[in-house]
Amino acid sequence: KIDAARLWDSLMEMAKIGPGIAGGNNRQTLTDDDARGRALFQSWCEAAGMTMGVDEMGTMFARREGTDADALPVYVGSHLDTQPTGGKYDGVLGVLGGLEIVRSLNDLGIRTRHPIVVTNWTNEEGTRYAPAMLASGVFAGVHAQDWAYDRVDADGKRFGDELERIGWKGDEKVGARKMHAFFELHIEQGPILEAEDRQIGVVTHGQGLWWLQVTLTGKESHTGSTPMDMRVNAGLGMARITELVHTVAMENQPGAVGAIGQANVYPNSRNVIPGKAVFTIDIRSPEQAKLDAMKARLETEVPKIAADLGLGIEIEPVGHFDPVTFDPGCVAAVRAAAERLGYSHMDIISGAGHDACWINRVAPTAMVMCPCVDGLSHNEAEEISPEWATAGANVLFHAVVETAEI
Amino acid sequence: KIDAARLWDSLMEMAKIGPGIAGGNNRQTLTDDDARGRALFQSWCEAAGMTMGVDEMGTMFARREGTDADALPVYVGSHLDTQPTGGKYDGVLGVLGGLEIVRSLNDLGIRTRHPIVVTNWTNEEGTRYAPAMLASGVFAGVHAQDWAYDRVDADGKRFGDELERIGWKGDEKVGARKMHAFFELHIEQGPILEAEDRQIGVVTHGQGLWWLQVTLTGKESHTGSTPMDMRVNAGLGMARITELVHTVAMENQPGAVGAIGQANVYPNSRNVIPGKAVFTIDIRSPEQAKLDAMKARLETEVPKIAADLGLGIEIEPVGHFDPVTFDPGCVAAVRAAAERLGYSHMDIISGAGHDACWINRVAPTAMVMCPCVDGLSHNEAEEISPEWATAGANVLFHAVVETAEI
Ligand SMILES: NC(=O)NCCC(=O)O
Ligand SMILES: NC(=O)NCCC(=O)O
Repeated sequence: KIDAARLWDSLMEMAKIGPGIAGGNNRQTLTDDDARGRALFQSWCEAAGMTMGVDEMGTMFARREGTDADALPVYVGSHLDTQPTGGKYDGVLGVLGGLEIVRSLNDLGIRTRHPIVVTNWTNEEGTRYAPAMLASGVFAGVHAQDWAYDRVDADGKRFGDELERIGWKGDEKVGARKMHAFFELHIEQGPILEAEDRQIGVVTHGQGLWWLQVTLTGKESHTGSTPMDMRVNAGLGMARITELVHTVAMENQPGAVGAIGQANVYPNSRNVIPGKAVFTIDIRSPEQAKLDAMKARLETEVPKIAADLGLGIEIEPVGHFDPVTFDPGCVAAVRAAAERLGYSHMDIISGAGHDACWINRVAPTAMVMCPCVDGLSHNEAEEISPEWATAGANVLFHAVVETAEI
Repeated sequence: KIDAARLWDSLMEMAKIGPGIAGGNNRQTLTDDDARGRALFQSWCEAAGMTMGVDEMGTMFARREGTDADALPVYVGSHLDTQPTGGKYDGVLGVLGGLEIVRSLNDLGIRTRHPIVVTNWTNEEGTRYAPAMLASGVFAGVHAQDWAYDRVDADGKRFGDELERIGWKGDEKVGARKMHAFFELHIEQGPILEAEDRQIGVVTHGQGLWWLQVTLTGKESHTGSTPMDMRVNAGLGMARITELVHTVAMENQPGAVGAIGQANVYPNSRNVIPGKAVFTIDIRSPEQAKLDAMKARLETEVPKIAADLGLGIEIEPVGHFDPVTFDPGCVAAVRAAAERLGYSHMDIISGAGHDACWINRVAPTAMVMCPCVDGLSHNEAEEISPEWATAGANVLFHAVVETAEI
C-alpha cells in the first residue's frame, strides 16, 4: 500500500502554488504559477531518483528505470493545471498519485520489469487554451503541433509563445515515446460514486464532446432610442441559444449534458445593444449517435435563431472527442486491484474528458476514479477525503505494478 | 448664424482624443483621455474669452459675461465623455455647439444681457460608472455627492478617486449655481427625424428609465460530469431573464424598450457551469404608468425565474429617472428658432436620457435634436452630416440668444 499521509501532504503542498480566492486553486496552464508547480513536481521526482524528460508541448515525463532494458514503460499521470476557480485535486491527484507509487516502490525496495513514467500533461483543462487535453491530443496524433502552438488565449497570447516564456518547452519530439500502458487516477467530478457509496470507479468508457464557439454579429446601438423593431441584438441571440442548448440536452436524457460556460457580449455597456456575442456551447453524451444528433440539431437550429434576429453567425468547432472505450485488459487490471484490496467499486463512465481519452488511441489505457464531495468539481470548494485519495492511489498502485510486472 | 466650418473642425479635433478602433471614440469618463479632452475644451473656452469654473463633481462651466451683473446666466451644454465604442457627436455636439454660440457672438460683437455658460457635465454616459447623468443628477439634488463619489467601475475604482487622479475635481459646491435656463443640443440617437425627413427635433419630453442590476448565484460545477438535474446554472437564468425583458418591452408597444447591454458570467470558462451572472436590465418608456408596470412585472417574474432554477438573486436599482416634460417656455423658444430659420422640424420625445432631464428639475430647460444616420448611436459608426450639425447649432444659437436677451 502507498503512504497515505505522504500523498496527502504533497497534495496540500502543491495546493499552495497558485492559490484561489476561496480555498481552491488558480494555476492555469502556462502561467508563472504553472511553472512553479512544475518545478516543485520536478524536484520531488528527482528526489525520488527519477530522471525528467520534457517534450516540445511541455509535457513532463519522470522515469523510474525497470529491470528489463527492452521493456516499454508503463505510464501513469494526469495534469497539474487547474481551472481559474478550480479545486486542489482535479488532475493533481493523478500526477501525485503516480509519484506516490514510485516513492512507495522505493520504500519497499521493489523494482518492476517495465520502467514507470509519471506524466504531467500540459493544458488539460482547456480553459485558457481550447481545446482541452491539448498536449495529450498532440501526443496521440489528433492535433498538429503547429496548430496547437497557434491557439490563443483571451488576451491574444499564443500557446507556443507562452510555453517558451515560462521556460517549459522541452526538446523531445511529441509522441515519439511508446507506451506499454497508461493509467490515470482522477476524482470523479460527478455525484455517482458518492450516491452509490462506492470507494472506486472502474472507468470503462468516456463521454464524447463537442465545443462549438459561436460568434453572433448584430448592430451596436442605443438601448433607449433604438425602437424595438430596429434592434439587431446579439445578446438576445445568445440567450435563445443558451435555452436551446439546455432543451437539446434535456431531450436527450438520460446521459446527455449541455451548457454554455463561457459567454461574452460586446461592448458590454449598460446602454448599448450588444453588437457582438461570443460564447462556447459544450454538449456531451456517452453515445455516439446522441452526440452526433445533438450537434446536427444545433448546427441547424442555431443559425435559424440568428437569422430570425437578423444576426450574422459563425460557428467554429474548438474542441471535440468521440465517446471512448478503454482497453479491456487495463480496465480488468483496475477492477482486479479494487477487488484484491477489498474496496467497494462499480463500473463508471467518465463525464469529463481526460488525457487518458486521447492516450487510449495510442496505448492500452484505463482510469481509476475516486468520489468527490457532492460531485462538485470545477469549483474551488471541490473536496475529497484522505481515505478516498488513499483508496484511489492504492488501486492505481496495484494496477500499475501488476502491469509493470515485479 | 454660427460658423459651420469652425464647428465641424472643432468636432473633428476633439474626436482625435481617445480614438476608437473603428472610426469613433473611446473617451470614457475620468480616463486620461477624458482629461485631455477637457483640457482642449478649456483652452478653446479661454481663447474665446471665457472664464472656467469647475465643481466638485468635475463639471466644467465656461462663462461669458453679460451686460447685466444681476442677471442669472443662460446655460448651454452637454457632455464630452463617450461610450467605450462610441461616436464622435453623442454629447460632444452639444458642448461644442455651445462653444460655437459664444465664438459667433464674439465674431458678431454681440453682448447678451444674461451671461452665457457653456457646460461639460461629468459622466453622462453611465457606462463606466452607473448611473448615467451622474454629475447633473448631483447638481439637481437627485443624488448625494458622497454616494456619487462611492460609485465603482468594473475594476473597483471609485469615482471620487478617479476624479482626483485625473486632476479635475474642482472646488465649487455642486448645485450652488442658479440658472436662468438650460439648453442642450444633442443628436437624436434614433431614427425618427431621418425617417420623417426633418432637420430639427423640438424635444418636448424625455423617456423614463430603470436600470436593474441583477446578480444570480448558482453553483460552479463541471459541464461534463454534472448531471442536468444537479445543475444550478446562473447563465441559463440570465438567458431566461434576457428573453423576459424582451417580451415585456414587446408587450408594451408602442414606445417601450428593454434590453440587457451588460452581461457577465463567472468564472467564464468553457467547461464550468456559470456559478454567478451579473447583468443590468435597461427598460424605458415615455409613459409613467407603463414604466412602473414594466418594472413591477420584472420585479415579480425575475425572482420566479431564479427560484425555478434554484438560483440566489439580488436586484439592485442602479439607475432611474421618470419621464420628463420640458419647460413649455424653453420648448417654445426652440420651436420658434427653428421656424424663424426656416428649418423643417417636429416635436419629438427623447429616447435617451440627457443631462437636460435632470437640470429640468432645477431650471427651465429644453433640448434641440438633429438627426443621425440610420438612427445609429452608441456605435463607432455614428454619423451626422455637417448640414445637420449646422442646423442644430443655429437653432440652439437663436434659442439661447433670445433667452439671454440682446
Ligand atoms: N477533467 C476535466 O475537467 N477535464 C477538462 C476537460 C473537460 O471539459 O472535460
Ligand atoms: N444620450 C445618452 O446616450 N445618454 C446616456 C444615458 C442613457 O442611457 O440614456
